[in-house]
Amino acid sequence: MINKIEITDKRFDLVKGAGSDAIHKDPQYSYAVTQLSEGDKTGTGLAFTLGAGNDLVCKAAQFYADTLKGKGIEELMSDFGSTFRSLSNEQQFRWLGPHKGVVHLGLASVTNACYDLWAKKRGVPLWKLLIDLSSEEIVNTLDLSYLEDVMTKEEAIELLKNQADQKTVRNGILDKGYPGYDTSVGWFNYDDEKVRENCKKAIANGFTAMKLKVGSADPKRDVRRANIVREVAGEEVKVMLDANQQWTLPQAISICNELKHMNPFWVEEPTHPDDILAHQTLAKKIAPVKLALGEHVPNRIIFKNYLQTGCTGFAQVDAVRVGGVSEFITISLLCKKFNVPVVPHVGDMGQLHQHLVLFNHIAMGHEALFLEHIPHLKQYFLNPIKIEKGVYITPQEPGSSCDLK
Amino acid sequence: MINKIEITDKRFDLVKGAGSDAIHKDPQYSYAVTQLSEGDKTGTGLAFTLGAGNDLVCKAAQFYADTLKGKGIEELMSDFGSTFRSLSNEQQFRWLGPHKGVVHLGLASVTNACYDLWAKKRGVPLWKLLIDLSSEEIVNTLDLSYLEDVMTKEEAIELLKNQADQKTVRNGILDKGYPGYDTSVGWFNYDDEKVRENCKKAIANGFTAMKLKVGSADPKRDVRRANIVREVAGEEVKVMLDANQQWTLPQAISICNELKHMNPFWVEEPTHPDDILAHQTLAKKIAPVKLALGEHVPNRIIFKNYLQTGCTGFAQVDAVRVGGVSEFITISLLCKKFNVPVVPHVGDMGQLHQHLVLFNHIAMGHEALFLEHIPHLKQYFLNPIKIEKGVYITPQEPGSSCDLK
Repeated sequence: MINKIEITDKRFDLVKGAGSDAIHKDPQYSYAVTQLSEGDKTGTGLAFTLGAGNDLVCKAAQFYADTLKGKGIEELMSDFGSTFRSLSNEQQFRWLGPHKGVVHLGLASVTNACYDLWAKKRGVPLWKLLIDLSSEEIVNTLDLSYLEDVMTKEEAIELLKNQADQKTVRNGILDKGYPGYDTSVGWFNYDDEKVRENCKKAIANGFTAMKLKVGSADPKRDVRRANIVREVAGEEVKVMLDANQQWTLPQAISICNELKHMNPFWVEEPTHPDDILAHQTLAKKIAPVKLALGEHVPNRIIFKNYLQTGCTGFAQVDAVRVGGVSEFITISLLCKKFNVPVVPHVGDMGQLHQHLVLFNHIAMGHEALFLEHIPHLKQYFLNPIKIEKGVYITPQEPGSSCDLK
Repeated sequence: MINKIEITDKRFDLVKGAGSDAIHKDPQYSYAVTQLSEGDKTGTGLAFTLGAGNDLVCKAAQFYADTLKGKGIEELMSDFGSTFRSLSNEQQFRWLGPHKGVVHLGLASVTNACYDLWAKKRGVPLWKLLIDLSSEEIVNTLDLSYLEDVMTKEEAIELLKNQADQKTVRNGILDKGYPGYDTSVGWFNYDDEKVRENCKKAIANGFTAMKLKVGSADPKRDVRRANIVREVAGEEVKVMLDANQQWTLPQAISICNELKHMNPFWVEEPTHPDDILAHQTLAKKIAPVKLALGEHVPNRIIFKNYLQTGCTGFAQVDAVRVGGVSEFITISLLCKKFNVPVVPHVGDMGQLHQHLVLFNHIAMGHEALFLEHIPHLKQYFLNPIKIEKGVYITPQEPGSSCDLK
């Protein structure tokens, strides 16, 4: 049973310019780290922040983690959906969300530690634990409340069962490796020359997809830089543009109609992440250009609304933003039902998500499109992700690869 | 200039059963209190929570309040919209929302302290300060970003200007007093007999509107209790039913269709506050019964979406949940544009909102419908609200009536 709980506030300085975007000029990548120990195994869970306030998330994580003391991890995970539901609805703490902001980030950290501990106890990588579970066992780890109008528990099980016979075929990805894309070619503060150089490097490193930060006060800067990336990358490479919520709806419509000439694979976070109807309007106005969204969407209910409006080209759910692995899987099931690809935002730098996209592909039948790659914290992880020729090498160590040195 | 900042974590125990609803079985009404001093005047601002985590909101308030040290309150308020915008988008802290949860509650506390200090410096009650400001001065205190698709700054000023010539007519409310409604007749944990007694008392006290908590596991309990209230209150009294998010969408459709027979004035918070599309579906299915919503809606952008869907019968924006008085006014302007009445939820127990509804009615032309009344914290306020014959007596002391003893 869980007999030791430790919460740690970890903050890392980045080299100048790295991580910058239209809204976040000078982030400090940080984790609220939960560690839960049972016997000689310690599960590590992360929630991601940009520095200030990481201590608040730690306090929220402590609040949730303390309730797990004395529970056995196997028993806990056999019905984790109930635990998730009761923790996320704790009757006083719930007021601080519900299911969003600091408290939900704290819950993510604790939830992720539970999954990590579970996999370590079984001595397998998280992707293997998850793909070997039965459909019922998976769904027992989920809280499907407030989704009844689009997906019942029975439908969720059915959806997974229908994918089971193709699991062995899709297992091939484990040897091939999951494709990555390079986010770091065009951080907002990088000058044109650095963007050009980085594109060349990305291609030399085998990437076939990459991302540029847009959302400048001067739209001409966005267009110029987007054209640079397209020019260096060529027509075959997928280029994504990320505005990080910087535009108003009228601005987004106008600028996206200029940017569409360089054929972006998607436009990401064009405006405020709460503005579902603005995304719906924008998606119609700029079709066939597709929207990617979800980095700041905190829970399954808002994702449900985004999917229902039909504006979501790509769902960028992040397991260190929503309530951890459990809600990540719930949202992935919703996306599968609505036929929308899941391309996670990686606040975890891909450490955890490399496991989750393998599960999504193999057990849920999601397309193995590509996973974001951000290298800036590599040196701090015990088992950093390995990427070769633009492809994530399948991790083999037990757990979810989230242990920090 | 602001030379002293104090943040206090205040928690109050309630008598057994008071404050209980379908979700919150045992709340502890609490305030994260911000105090900002300039010279001999101290402004007090509140954010409301249910106990656990109130310390997190205090920490967030401290983060924002510290940035105001050395600023003069008059200068600050002459362009408070810019300050609100820059604080709520602080580039690291923003990740923890944005514009929701713990950080936004912290901002509410600080914003409210600014308005209170402003009114105290001028030696007038907040309602008077606000109704005497010009349309431009009001709009300068607001952050209208991400609303450009429905309301520009110019339109907001125009909307207020169009109401200016009727101000003196509507001033009559100051003498008559603003009507109240009684929320405390039917808390969830009260038994049938207590509900019956409380209804009689409410009517004897002059109330013509009252609220019952529903959302029981057994819908028959809801129907039985709703019928009791209707029976005691008679046909003329307005009876509101509040489910506090307890129902799934399918449940809400079914139960509301039973409850409509007792002719509720509104059904409040039927399901999850993030589920805009569920509210839209429900509103259509149970018309002409109207929905009241907003107690847990954290910001102007989500209110905009709710208004755009047409499902909002009554907007229950709460100035101690959204980013304080500034965003309350912004949302009230949106509601006016969409022709939806504002009937605040009163996490402040009506202390602050008695000022704001007077402003909304007199300066913005909102109907003076009624304001929620909850008496449970009366003894802790320096100038508690006064209610006589079911009507709020207009407060005359300088400030926003939020000082605690």
